[in-house]
Amino acid sequence: MQENILMSFGQTIRKIRLSKEISQEKFADMCDLHRTYISDIELGKRNVSLENIEKMSIALNLKISQLFEEVEKNETI
Amino acid sequence: MQENILMSFGQTIRKIRLSKEISQEKFADMCDLHRTYISDIELGKRNVSLENIEKMSIALNLKISQLFEEVEKNETI
Repeated sequence: MQENILMSFGQTIRKIRLSKEISQEKFADMCDLHRTYISDIELGKRNVSLENIEKMSIALNLKISQLFEEVEKNETI
Repeated sequence: MQENILMSFGQTIRKIRLSKEISQEKFADMCDLHRTYISDIELGKRNVSLENIEKMSIALNLKISQLFEEVEKNETI
């Protein structure tokens, strides 16, 4: 099933965050974003902006291109 | 000089668009976005959303990860 990009992105953020054992609250702090905003992103409910994509990729210690490689891997499952 | 992500993204979109000899107007049509919006993005004036990033990457026949690889190459110049 082809999911939309916001769902795939959110699921990937959640998966990487959990693999690093970072809570949603701590991750929000690391990104300087609100916890409910992170929650919405992970659920695919927000059309996240490029500046916030950059904040999350920096917090996860990934290049944006690497983050989207993970998103694209998730899409093919 | 470290530029911000919106500038790097915009410059990369412009560079790839021009390399394919696509006008701003035609590119806007291909993305189903407004020409002035494309113009603003190319100038780094818009905090572009993930859905619109996807539209532009599809129009340029690139995966989003590939588009950001190009952005990251531009940043290191």
